[in-house]
Amino acid sequence: MKSVRFLALLVGVFLSAHAVGAVGATAVPEVAATTASKKKAGPITRIDPTFWWVGMKNPKLQLLVYGPGIGASKVSLKYDGVTLNGVQKLENPNYLLVNLTISPNTRPGKLPLEFQGERKIKYDYELRARSNKVGRVQGITSADFVYLLMPDRFANGDPKNDVVKGTLVNRVARDSMYARHGGDLLGIENHFDYLKELGVTAIWPTPIVENDMPKASYHGYALTDYYAVDPRYGTNEDYVNFVRNAHRNGLKVIHDVVLNHMGSKNYLFLDQPAKDWFHQWPTFTRSNYRDAAFNDPYVSQADRKQFGEGWFDTTMPDVNQSNPLVANYLIQNFLWWVEYTGLDGYRIDTYPYSDRRFLMDWGAAIQEQYPRLGMYGEAWVQGNGQQAYFARNILPPVDGFKSNLPGVTDFQSQYAITEAMTKDAGWTDGIAKLYYALQGDWMYENALRNVVFLDNHDMSRFFSVIGEDVPKLKMALSWLLTTRGIPQLYYGTEILMKNFSNPDGLVRADFPGGFPGDIQNKFVATGRSTAEQEVFALVSKLATYRKAHPALHSGRLMQFVPQEGVYTYFRYSDAGTVMVLMNSNKDAKTVDGGRFAERLNGFSSGVEVVSGAVVLDLKTLRIPGRTAWVVELK
Amino acid sequence: MKSVRFLALLVGVFLSAHAVGAVGATAVPEVAATTASKKKAGPITRIDPTFWWVGMKNPKLQLLVYGPGIGASKVSLKYDGVTLNGVQKLENPNYLLVNLTISPNTRPGKLPLEFQGERKIKYDYELRARSNKVGRVQGITSADFVYLLMPDRFANGDPKNDVVKGTLVNRVARDSMYARHGGDLLGIENHFDYLKELGVTAIWPTPIVENDMPKASYHGYALTDYYAVDPRYGTNEDYVNFVRNAHRNGLKVIHDVVLNHMGSKNYLFLDQPAKDWFHQWPTFTRSNYRDAAFNDPYVSQADRKQFGEGWFDTTMPDVNQSNPLVANYLIQNFLWWVEYTGLDGYRIDTYPYSDRRFLMDWGAAIQEQYPRLGMYGEAWVQGNGQQAYFARNILPPVDGFKSNLPGVTDFQSQYAITEAMTKDAGWTDGIAKLYYALQGDWMYENALRNVVFLDNHDMSRFFSVIGEDVPKLKMALSWLLTTRGIPQLYYGTEILMKNFSNPDGLVRADFPGGFPGDIQNKFVATGRSTAEQEVFALVSKLATYRKAHPALHSGRLMQFVPQEGVYTYFRYSDAGTVMVLMNSNKDAKTVDGGRFAERLNGFSSGVEVVSGAVVLDLKTLRIPGRTAWVVELK
Repeated sequence: MKSVRFLALLVGVFLSAHAVGAVGATAVPEVAATTASKKKAGPITRIDPTFWWVGMKNPKLQLLVYGPGIGASKVSLKYDGVTLNGVQKLENPNYLLVNLTISPNTRPGKLPLEFQGERKIKYDYELRARSNKVGRVQGITSADFVYLLMPDRFANGDPKNDVVKGTLVNRVARDSMYARHGGDLLGIENHFDYLKELGVTAIWPTPIVENDMPKASYHGYALTDYYAVDPRYGTNEDYVNFVRNAHRNGLKVIHDVVLNHMGSKNYLFLDQPAKDWFHQWPTFTRSNYRDAAFNDPYVSQADRKQFGEGWFDTTMPDVNQSNPLVANYLIQNFLWWVEYTGLDGYRIDTYPYSDRRFLMDWGAAIQEQYPRLGMYGEAWVQGNGQQAYFARNILPPVDGFKSNLPGVTDFQSQYAITEAMTKDAGWTDGIAKLYYALQGDWMYENALRNVVFLDNHDMSRFFSVIGEDVPKLKMALSWLLTTRGIPQLYYGTEILMKNFSNPDGLVRADFPGGFPGDIQNKFVATGRSTAEQEVFALVSKLATYRKAHPALHSGRLMQFVPQEGVYTYFRYSDAGTVMVLMNSNKDAKTVDGGRFAERLNGFSSGVEVVSGAVVLDLKTLRIPGRTAWVVELK
Repeated sequence: MKSVRFLALLVGVFLSAHAVGAVGATAVPEVAATTASKKKAGPITRIDPTFWWVGMKNPKLQLLVYGPGIGASKVSLKYDGVTLNGVQKLENPNYLLVNLTISPNTRPGKLPLEFQGERKIKYDYELRARSNKVGRVQGITSADFVYLLMPDRFANGDPKNDVVKGTLVNRVARDSMYARHGGDLLGIENHFDYLKELGVTAIWPTPIVENDMPKASYHGYALTDYYAVDPRYGTNEDYVNFVRNAHRNGLKVIHDVVLNHMGSKNYLFLDQPAKDWFHQWPTFTRSNYRDAAFNDPYVSQADRKQFGEGWFDTTMPDVNQSNPLVANYLIQNFLWWVEYTGLDGYRIDTYPYSDRRFLMDWGAAIQEQYPRLGMYGEAWVQGNGQQAYFARNILPPVDGFKSNLPGVTDFQSQYAITEAMTKDAGWTDGIAKLYYALQGDWMYENALRNVVFLDNHDMSRFFSVIGEDVPKLKMALSWLLTTRGIPQLYYGTEILMKNFSNPDGLVRADFPGGFPGDIQNKFVATGRSTAEQEVFALVSKLATYRKAHPALHSGRLMQFVPQEGVYTYFRYSDAGTVMVLMNSNKDAKTVDGGRFAERLNGFSSGVEVVSGAVVLDLKTLRIPGRTAWVVELK
């Protein structure tokens, strides 16, 4: 994550002098403000994980018990199959770690934990049976088409949860880009049909976990309770149902994972288990946002430390994952979400910002338990080599790091499609960038696992970047849905939502029609302008076609050297061949199909998928300016 | 090599329909036109290698014997220590391969080869003793400062060799950028003092080997005799003396190696040993110049073939190095030049264009014999990963290729310094590119072996690209002489030579003062303008300083994240520390030295190397706009 997001945040985020001042101090507990903590009364405020399961691959479980003075307690437990391996005190007496081993044949139920301190406290800790429902954890593959949305901004299904008593924000304000707008899980569910019509197969909401922050809490990247859905979106059970309903509708769910930082109102920060759970600085120090420092052979240790340990923002303390207790807390939490909900994939925020050893351990632990789970990391980096470094690749470990992440968000091809649509074609410029972006794939274990996209919630909207040029957007969308990888669309691109990320944050505007009282409703064709409908229809057509044609999502790719501003590639498998021609020139071009004999041999004609036009002559292809053709060969 | 060079060539090169027509035909011998062939009368026209040595690591030697009808001969040889291992006929009866093994104790002398065909032919083949003179093959390291020049354009030391009878060009024409101008080896030697004054330690002339071509022969990349120096530059012995004299003057010599193609007037092409010595095409087919096709995982075989087997130009047939006989011919030739002259380094032209297996075999053979020899390949490619692929790197073999080349011409940092001096500083733009270019070095075995440069003979001159801005040029030169790698200067940059490569080729203009009758003489300070002298002096000062300060050429490098358009790095070793600050802004900037504590601790002041100014305060550095400081710390 980088300057763009930083700038966007900076405008709206209150630079809390208080929060900065509190760093390093062992603050008085003030957890009453968080919602989850209020769910349990009594001397034990909470135990994380909030419950667990029998039969996980790793039989060990470490409970973080939180309660006033609980650290001085002796713990006992009698439950068949569960062994108490001892406890561990932390710097802060309000915490105690309890280590358990759960044998695979243990009967699910309540573990009667007893804490003996000044008085005896009993706590029934829930041990559940794992779900064996079919269709859980389906994984995310290049057969998917991912829709990225911000839950607060997509649709408001339940106005009753817009403002939740006890949270730090007591209003919705749709006229402010930094306030809550009221969107929620039910709002998304209400538009499953829309997403299905668009051809989407997977939903990636920005984080739905509690962000009980006083300002800009809508964005979701400042977690205040690792085990609770934000009440403005729904309950934990609502989220479980959301995943189930999505699955019933043929939609998968990607959960946005934040490992690097948390919200400063998280109880773990307000009442820190130990100072070494966070990267502490004498005065507030922001990350330099330079992933390059992760593996720069010429790095200064100061830059490296600032990159990895500097805070993402004043309100986002940097978590010290090199502390094995913290690492374990995060591993258990992200095993918990998968097991609890059956979700299909993890998108990992600010992937390079975390501790290198932790990233490897975390990835290995998650994948050991859920080998099918889709996983891709945000790697907003420069250059093919650097990007490949953060995914599973053919490289040896470098600087103590070897990524085990199946894929990354493919910023290199995003830079390329942006240049392709904004700069004239040159030897290496303009549309040639698309060719070079893919050419670097030789460094990946499998580049099909990368997520390709035109824009996201941290960037200026693609439609604005290309000067609101509909033909260019259509070209770019045709590329998105036919190149290698997992295509991802940012909500509203299909209805020509626009704006620049800097300085107003309007790229996170509400989807028109998603909120009570909206005058426009772009969820229905009648609410869309001709141009909007045209683009919506193109996405829908291609995405639907893509689903039914494996060549287009899982087939091999062959690209030809771009010539005169025209870039041509093929997706092919035993099931068929699709030719994509992209003419970036203003004017029509005649392309010699003879160059493509390797792929055209055996075919005599084609059908352009979007328009349905028949291409009778594969030898001489006359393609109009600013046009992409997606041609199924016959 | 790419479009720029291609375009430059295209203008001047005669598109010989005849030469194209001749491809694939076994032409009548017409070698009389080449100079080397005239040296030997008699039925054996020539034998390559023209002579050899006792005691080479590989005791085997393969002679390519050329003479009318020689292929039908039986061969005999009696010489103690030399075994005749048999002969091999080729498709063309005018050739015969003779395989010898030379035992290490063989007495140097003349091998009495006897060829029995229609008549008996005797040929005394010379076997020399290897030279054991000290100072031969010194290698090229980051301690060097390389001066790239074009021998035809630098200085004319001997007007008598401007036009050589029997060659295909019968004139010099200094008013044409595509004609011969008369420069030669003696001209370079005459200016050794100038080069020493400038601080140069190694000379890289573009190829000095015979280019007896009818047009544009001056550039040197169309070899017509692998074993002869071009007579317009001098004789073979002159070249031997040139290297010796250079060494006596503390200058090393880099030989420009062309493996991919030869000149169409080479006897080997005019009377081809066999069709499979060349990449033959039904009609003339130019390379697509896309190195990406070398290892693109999505490559079309047509593109890959056209890249590697397409001709570089109509007058430059593409050599088929996958033919083991051709590979051996080229390996022997480039062992020969080192052994013959004692030269110090090889620059390999169009490195990615050659056969992958051949490149590995050729590199291994040369390095086995001459482990000290400097070697770097031209890799005009896109992206850090792609560039590292063509040098010794940490990568596994990819697509059947694992480079054994110690270094490459570092185009990535060249792109970066160009952007740094032409675009405003941004998060990743402008001067930030320098930071990112080096950051990718984690992929190399040793990036110090890469050659850094501002421009070369195929590119627009850097001074023109940056708008003839002297302060910017000074900044860039300061970077060149202090960053990691082997700095290379293109002749004339130090005296502000300018021009764009396209379309007029004037980037290869004559060095003023190098030619009889020149009105200006920039070899002497009195001939230089104030600005020219200023730049000359800066290069001289820094290069001289660099020689004496190992930290600057072999020390470690530490770079700091650029901030507000200022990029800072350090070179350091036990011998000292040098800080380089580059302020790319128009205006002065105050830099907080506290950021650099890792390198500044222990020092209290510094001296700016070029100006001699004392920097008293290392905590607060106030650097003027568009300035680079090279500060020796005290």
